[in-house]
Amino acid sequence: MISVGIVGGTGYTGAELLRLLATHPQVRVQTVTSRSEAGKALSELYPNLSTSTDLQLVAPDSAELKRCECVFFAAPNGTAMHMVPELIEAGVKVIDLAADFRIKDAAVWEHWYKQTHACPELLPQAVYGLPEVHREMIGQARLVANPGCYPTAIILAVLPLLEQGLAEPARLIADAKSGVSGAGRGANVPALFSEAGENFRAYNVQAHRHWPEITQELQGIRQAPVELTFTPHLVPMVRGIFATVYAPDVEDTADLDAIYRQRYSHEPFVDVLPQGALPETKHVRGSNFCRLSVLRPNDGEVVVVLSVIDNLVKGAAGQAVQNMNLMFGLDETAGLMQTGLFP
Amino acid sequence: MISVGIVGGTGYTGAELLRLLATHPQVRVQTVTSRSEAGKALSELYPNLSTSTDLQLVAPDSAELKRCECVFFAAPNGTAMHMVPELIEAGVKVIDLAADFRIKDAAVWEHWYKQTHACPELLPQAVYGLPEVHREMIGQARLVANPGCYPTAIILAVLPLLEQGLAEPARLIADAKSGVSGAGRGANVPALFSEAGENFRAYNVQAHRHWPEITQELQGIRQAPVELTFTPHLVPMVRGIFATVYAPDVEDTADLDAIYRQRYSHEPFVDVLPQGALPETKHVRGSNFCRLSVLRPNDGEVVVVLSVIDNLVKGAAGQAVQNMNLMFGLDETAGLMQTGLFP
Amino acid sequence: MISVGIVGGTGYTGAELLRLLATHPQVRVQTVTSRSEAGKALSELYPNLSTSTDLQLVAPDSAELKRCECVFFAAPNGTAMHMVPELIEAGVKVIDLAADFRIKDAAVWEHWYKQTHACPELLPQAVYGLPEVHREMIGQARLVANPGCYPTAIILAVLPLLEQGLAEPARLIADAKSGVSGAGRGANVPALFSEAGENFRAYNVQAHRHWPEITQELQGIRQAPVELTFTPHLVPMVRGIFATVYAPDVEDTADLDAIYRQRYSHEPFVDVLPQGALPETKHVRGSNFCRLSVLRPNDGEVVVVLSVIDNLVKGAAGQAVQNMNLMFGLDETAGLMQTGLFP
Amino acid sequence: MISVGIVGGTGYTGAELLRLLATHPQVRVQTVTSRSEAGKALSELYPNLSTSTDLQLVAPDSAELKRCECVFFAAPNGTAMHMVPELIEAGVKVIDLAADFRIKDAAVWEHWYKQTHACPELLPQAVYGLPEVHREMIGQARLVANPGCYPTAIILAVLPLLEQGLAEPARLIADAKSGVSGAGRGANVPALFSEAGENFRAYNVQAHRHWPEITQELQGIRQAPVELTFTPHLVPMVRGIFATVYAPDVEDTADLDAIYRQRYSHEPFVDVLPQGALPETKHVRGSNFCRLSVLRPNDGEVVVVLSVIDNLVKGAAGQAVQNMNLMFGLDETAGLMQTGLFP
Repeated sequence: MISVGIVGGTGYTGAELLRLLATHPQVRVQTVTSRSEAGKALSELYPNLSTSTDLQLVAPDSAELKRCECVFFAAPNGTAMHMVPELIEAGVKVIDLAADFRIKDAAVWEHWYKQTHACPELLPQAVYGLPEVHREMIGQARLVANPGCYPTAIILAVLPLLEQGLAEPARLIADAKSGVSGAGRGANVPALFSEAGENFRAYNVQAHRHWPEITQELQGIRQAPVELTFTPHLVPMVRGIFATVYAPDVEDTADLDAIYRQRYSHEPFVDVLPQGALPETKHVRGSNFCRLSVLRPNDGEVVVVLSVIDNLVKGAAGQAVQNMNLMFGLDETAGLMQTGLFP
Repeated sequence: MISVGIVGGTGYTGAELLRLLATHPQVRVQTVTSRSEAGKALSELYPNLSTSTDLQLVAPDSAELKRCECVFFAAPNGTAMHMVPELIEAGVKVIDLAADFRIKDAAVWEHWYKQTHACPELLPQAVYGLPEVHREMIGQARLVANPGCYPTAIILAVLPLLEQGLAEPARLIADAKSGVSGAGRGANVPALFSEAGENFRAYNVQAHRHWPEITQELQGIRQAPVELTFTPHLVPMVRGIFATVYAPDVEDTADLDAIYRQRYSHEPFVDVLPQGALPETKHVRGSNFCRLSVLRPNDGEVVVVLSVIDNLVKGAAGQAVQNMNLMFGLDETAGLMQTGLFP
Repeated sequence: MISVGIVGGTGYTGAELLRLLATHPQVRVQTVTSRSEAGKALSELYPNLSTSTDLQLVAPDSAELKRCECVFFAAPNGTAMHMVPELIEAGVKVIDLAADFRIKDAAVWEHWYKQTHACPELLPQAVYGLPEVHREMIGQARLVANPGCYPTAIILAVLPLLEQGLAEPARLIADAKSGVSGAGRGANVPALFSEAGENFRAYNVQAHRHWPEITQELQGIRQAPVELTFTPHLVPMVRGIFATVYAPDVEDTADLDAIYRQRYSHEPFVDVLPQGALPETKHVRGSNFCRLSVLRPNDGEVVVVLSVIDNLVKGAAGQAVQNMNLMFGLDETAGLMQTGLFP
Repeated sequence: MISVGIVGGTGYTGAELLRLLATHPQVRVQTVTSRSEAGKALSELYPNLSTSTDLQLVAPDSAELKRCECVFFAAPNGTAMHMVPELIEAGVKVIDLAADFRIKDAAVWEHWYKQTHACPELLPQAVYGLPEVHREMIGQARLVANPGCYPTAIILAVLPLLEQGLAEPARLIADAKSGVSGAGRGANVPALFSEAGENFRAYNVQAHRHWPEITQELQGIRQAPVELTFTPHLVPMVRGIFATVYAPDVEDTADLDAIYRQRYSHEPFVDVLPQGALPETKHVRGSNFCRLSVLRPNDGEVVVVLSVIDNLVKGAAGQAVQNMNLMFGLDETAGLMQTGLFP
């Protein structure tokens, strides 16, 4: 049994980690920390967990965390970087669900996250935790930067196109839509039911922190520049990401269906849908799957890829568990084969 | 492995059965029938099941069903009664999730369901499948009538009061609220998103088919008449039942908290909440639990019991699996310990 | 043109007042105050108002308010009582949409609202602004306490029963359900979309501040004690109150339909539905109407009354305008005949 | 007073027409027809209209319709074309809210709508009823084809770009999202609350009937070919269209803010938002306004225009009233200045 610690157990991604790990056959959650809610039972904050855990939240304590084999950070951006060096030093494997280790260039990170990076020396060894791209490196990593929810949905949507050099020039438009849980459990007016309900809006259109992350990865895949336009929107639903990605210049002789199907044929969590079927966020709610459709509307030059994930699972906690499985040499799907909840 | 058949795989309760049985360690689903959708893959109708099953729907075939050890009917009212006698005869154990065997008095059933009962001779041996009340009999039953969603939430709310003779005279008011999935997957205008969304309404206030069912059971528990007022409402959410039950005449010396806590101390799926905590439907979404609070507002004479379940789990498919576990001598909780999905 | 001031223009009730007054033919809104948002345009906070008003919020200034003929307080409880005496003195008519003047007994008010009342001497002249009960007194009032949303829906539901002495003993149970906008625009976790969405729950069951208010009024109507059990619930919708009121002891010879129909025949904003029809909150969304049904389920002894209003209109801003119309001798329906928004 | 008839009073657009016309100072609704619901009161189907109208639905009767000065068709596609010739002949002015007269080329129409056009001879005189483009012609028209909801939102989003020749080559991508009311009041499974709630999906991506309509109009504006990719999505909300339109090739010296602001400075129903503000569907719910933002994310080459309307108002019934006002020489805003409903 792998002993696990979770830093930040009060947010939605921390709670989702606990939900998933409760069914994982090779994991024992040893400690869950929270600075603000220490002393409370997890099941008080998340009554759905009452059957999964009787743990109490404790204040973060590095000695306790060092006794774990694997520590997940489900805390705000800028938290992990202050604690990770010590844990890595102690031989603990770390998965950060926030953004501290996602951007390779510390200066770029500092520009977008408006703070000084506390351990830029660890960035080279941090592996971007998207198994479909970096599986081998994740298997050997001590530190994994778990991808953002939008990046996961968007990169998986265009990976085969870029790998095959089919989108040339690589000018991509990603029109992405997220459920409200992506905004977290912090109290704020725009996320109130009365504001977000019966409403649809875009936000951070001028610039969003996931843009440099997606761009970095797409350019790594293509080994050349990629020009990305990324527009995030908020949907009046709790869970789900829907990405509609447009590749305007794809040669029309490519058999996209075959290319996508082949690329993902061995991926346990990516489903390329049968032609004619379209993905829906509710079909992956509560599951670690990404479902994809690739189309060429009106037989034009523009290719459209539709991609759905559950932002809290494949977009956060589920992918983190998938990464842990790879880092510890377990079955990649362990603890992750739950059937989604429909309706 | 118990071989299972499901009659009616296209509705929400059938799909939920498949979701739950997919994780059940001692069950193999052998056949799922549908008259209207025979030939289709289940995962086409319910893409969330694509990881759980690769079964195709087949037309109902009694020979095939007779080869099963256990058959669930997740079909409309009036379906099971035409097929059950033959199955029982063949030694198959049957659980009907519809209403055909819930009412002991065939004349009462025929009055409320507006049709002639096809096998009234089986009614005496049918056991009402609420394990918290009839566990022993369920264990020996060949035919179980799985309770309705409202009855489950309401009976569990008042069971300790009636058993202890605390509500005298027994005049109860059950104000109950259901998510829209209770109306099933059939197309109808009042269940459209544009009609049911952003709306709250009551329905069937003058008379609802669950009224005789609840009354029958409450009177069985009390061994005396019970006067029940039952008002169902529709909530703009997909899953969940919330029952607010009023017992106007409860002697004020009773230590209700202790009585409830003791009554349910050994029940695996009933949680009596700590004093001060109140149940929410979302805390049991996707799980087989019933959560209860009992209060005496303003220290008055009226006792209020709040009770929540997921209508598709403890209110239908989960309870059916719980009954199957009892009928086959398995661990009562097998396949049913999933953590609910929150948020 | 009546010159109007509004204290507290940043909350939902203040914005709703502005929406309604924009179509009122005899009103000019002169000043809208906000301590926190002074200097901002109202249309920045509420873009839907951009066509109705170009006013900017200003800091509260009693000189400016005294120049108004009518001042509405749409501010938190405990605000109006500090400013009203000066305004009344200056001859301004005041309508408080909060609770400061709803409870006649200052000690009771202080018990429930946990603060000292700043002007108990004004309580005797404050009129409870439910026109269907106190129309004459409202017409002569200088200070009107606008009723709470729950009290409006519940009192209108049982008014004919109590006036006619039909509920004896008067033991009433009000099971009430509210949309989330009733919680206001303040940021708080339980009102987040991810928490309140797809969820149904009760709150303040042990004691809610509207209980003494409803009880006071019902007892005033009956001229005798009324025992009320009141259970508030939260519905995943934005607007609407649905009250299901149970009167367990109503003599069964009473022709309730006729009694209700006659009682409300001249009320411009109360609709008694045809027999067989049931009210829905969405049918009054955005309108000042209360819609009622009275039933006797299963022909039993318990009478059930169903009552719906829009909590922000008849439950707050609309009723306040109705009160203003009465106080100034205008047509009671002026500015209030908007058609509700459906779907 | 203009006497008005409405063919098809049972759908959402017919009901919305009645809501808007109820406040119109120069209109009297004389007859509303429905083949299926003749004899019913409108207020029975739409209780929110009970204060606006006491009309009963009648079976369509051309004699009665010919006595009207203006007839609106709020009926399914393919209905109006069978009745319009006779009405036009009789001097009645006609506004069709369906698609029968939107496409100038009858062959194209027949290809997309899968039926033979009943009166192609009327197509040349039918005017596409988007006042911001065709105001003059609408003023003289006898027959107006009211635009679809998506076309309205999308054309208004890019009109200034195309008029100024700024998008060269004109390759546009319109990622559009609609509330569920756009699917109408017909019962169908995908529009059920349990299916569409908590879900986001695309539909008709390969081809949607609004594509030829939008393309025809954009090409008319540009006077040259326009290559359009159009992807419609379904949002779990009742009302609203949100269009995110991408123009990938816009010269970066253009002062887009000034161009948009000037283009729409005299338009009564188009608001170009201040820089930094972004539109939300809820800000126009119930109103006839279109709100727009134009941005250049990360200062790149791609211009993004965000556009919101209420699909039932500016996207249907409101625009129809606006067209009627123009056709009869009335104030263009008559009956259309309602404040939207927020929250």
